[in-house]
Order: sequence, then structure tokens, then C-alpha cells
Amino acid sequence: MSQDTVMLEGALADRSAWTAERCTIDAALSVVSTRSAMLILREAFYGTRRFDDFVERVGVTEAVAAARLRELTDAGVLRRVPYQQPGQRTRHEYRLTQMGSDLFPALLALARWGDEYLTGEAGPPLQWLHHDCGAAVSATVTCAAGHEVPIGELMVRGRRRPSSR
Amino acid sequence: MSQDTVMLEGALADRSAWTAERCTIDAALSVVSTRSAMLILREAFYGTRRFDDFVERVGVTEAVAAARLRELTDAGVLRRVPYQQPGQRTRHEYRLTQMGSDLFPALLALARWGDEYLTGEAGPPLQWLHHDCGAAVSATVTCAAGHEVPIGELMVRGRRRPSSR
Repeated sequence: MSQDTVMLEGALADRSAWTAERCTIDAALSVVSTRSAMLILREAFYGTRRFDDFVERVGVTEAVAAARLRELTDAGVLRRVPYQQPGQRTRHEYRLTQMGSDLFPALLALARWGDEYLTGEAGPPLQWLHHDCGAAVSATVTCAAGHEVPIGELMVRGRRRPSSR
Repeated sequence: MSQDTVMLEGALADRSAWTAERCTIDAALSVVSTRSAMLILREAFYGTRRFDDFVERVGVTEAVAAARLRELTDAGVLRRVPYQQPGQRTRHEYRLTQMGSDLFPALLALARWGDEYLTGEAGPPLQWLHHDCGAAVSATVTCAAGHEVPIGELMVRGRRRPSSR
């Protein structure tokens, strides 16, 4: 097996015998498949909360922003929180839920990949840094024991049909 | 600033003064925005290389698979490699380039997020494990000094307009 593919173990080893029917990448994409959904999430991570700010900063129409915010709220990624400015009616702002916050590694991975391959001579527009130590931050593939895991050391095992080992 | 948003530093601190014009998340999504592009990449990481296998395993039409494979090849994510079976004409298979391999953290992040939030009672279909130690693998936000970085400790600095500190 080459080093750029994962190791398929047990019942998965014969690729012709299965397809990824309950794939959770696919499931995740059903929630955040559109460019506008991803960019609204980006803005939420930057601290944007209010409808008008999402419209302006993402650069979409009000109709698109409203649809995406509703979908992301229905999916549980954002939550609506009421707020009121003096003399105005109650409005709602949008904040990330824990489910939404947990999408951050996916967005950062895309950002850092874009930084690496898609910025040309101008270079990346932003630096992502760890506030406490100043080192560059990226999304890495890591195991619970703390090892950085190259793709070639990653093993995929079917959870419902454990292999014999 | 709340703990679920990044710290915007220097010229970025006033969100009303800038928008993400050269956003590399957006740039990345211009390459891998479609569900079918992401699922073709998933298959490439599982070791799929041949056109017919992509069609079958992703569950798309031949036209869609051909369009996505061409786009991903043009973008530099996949490369075409000739192969020949006895008595048949030369065909091409598709392999990940380094650029393509480097998308793995983004796909894994989506997969693990889906595992966590979108599988219901059935639970995740697959286990992602480090072959060498057996520990569960995920996409984490980590700095070059090896610290795992919570969102609230992540600082974003404009690269072209360094702040005064």
C-alpha cells in the first residue's frame, strides 16, 4: 500500500466488497456543503453575530444569508440569541454552538491548505498564530496518544463488523 | 472576547474596517466545493484509482465522475498515470499529488465531526486508528511548538500589514 492512502483493515480490506454507505464526510457535507455556509461559519469564528454583518462580510444577498443562517441554526451549528438595542425591537444574533465550534478544525484545514497552494506570489493574507507561544497554527492529524499521524500510518476499521484480530 | 472566536489582532481587530477579500477558505472551496469532489477525494485516500471504481464507489454518473476527475486533475490535486492491462489499450488512473494528500486533514476533520454529531444511535461506521499505537485519530488544531490550541488562544494577524507589536 502506498504512503498516500490509509490502511483498510479487516472486512474493509477488499474495497470491492463495500462502499461507504454511512459515510460521515458525506453527512457533514449535507450540513455545510455550500460555499456560503462555510463562509458564514468563518465569520462566526471571527466574531460576527448579527445578520447585517454576515450579509456584508460574506458578500451574499440577504436572502442567501437568511437561508444559510436558518439552515445552520436548524442543524444545531448556530443558535439564535435575542438582543435589544435602546428604542428598537428585539432582534436575534447568531452564535456558534459547541457543535459549530467543533467545525473549526475543518475550516482551519481548508484555510491552511489554501494558504499553501492557492495564494501565488502574494502569499497567504493572514497568519494563524498560537497566542500563548507565537508559533504557527495548523490542523494536524493526531492520535489520542499525541503522535502526529502520517496518512500511511492511519488505519480504518469497520466499527460494526470487527475483524478477527 | 468569547472563547469560541479567534483573536483578531492589529489592523484586523476592527472587523468593520476589513473583509476577507483574499480568504483562502474561499479559495480552497473553489477547488473542492462540491460533494462529489470531496467524495472522490475520500475514495482516493481509500486507495481508489480507476475511473470505474470512482463511479461505483462514489455513486455518481460517469459524466459527473469524469467532470470532477478532470477538474481535480487540472487543479493539481490528482495526477493521471497511464496503465495497461494485457490486450487492452492504455488507460489512465488517478493518484493523489502532494497537494491532494495535504487535503487529508480537512476531510478527516469533516469525518470526525460527522462521527460526533451526525450518526445518531448507530454510532460512527468507521474507527480511525493510529496503526502504530492503536489510539483514535482526529484532526486537531496544533501549533508548530506542539501545543493543542483552543479556538480562544488562536490569534489571526494580517500578514501584509503587520501591527506595531
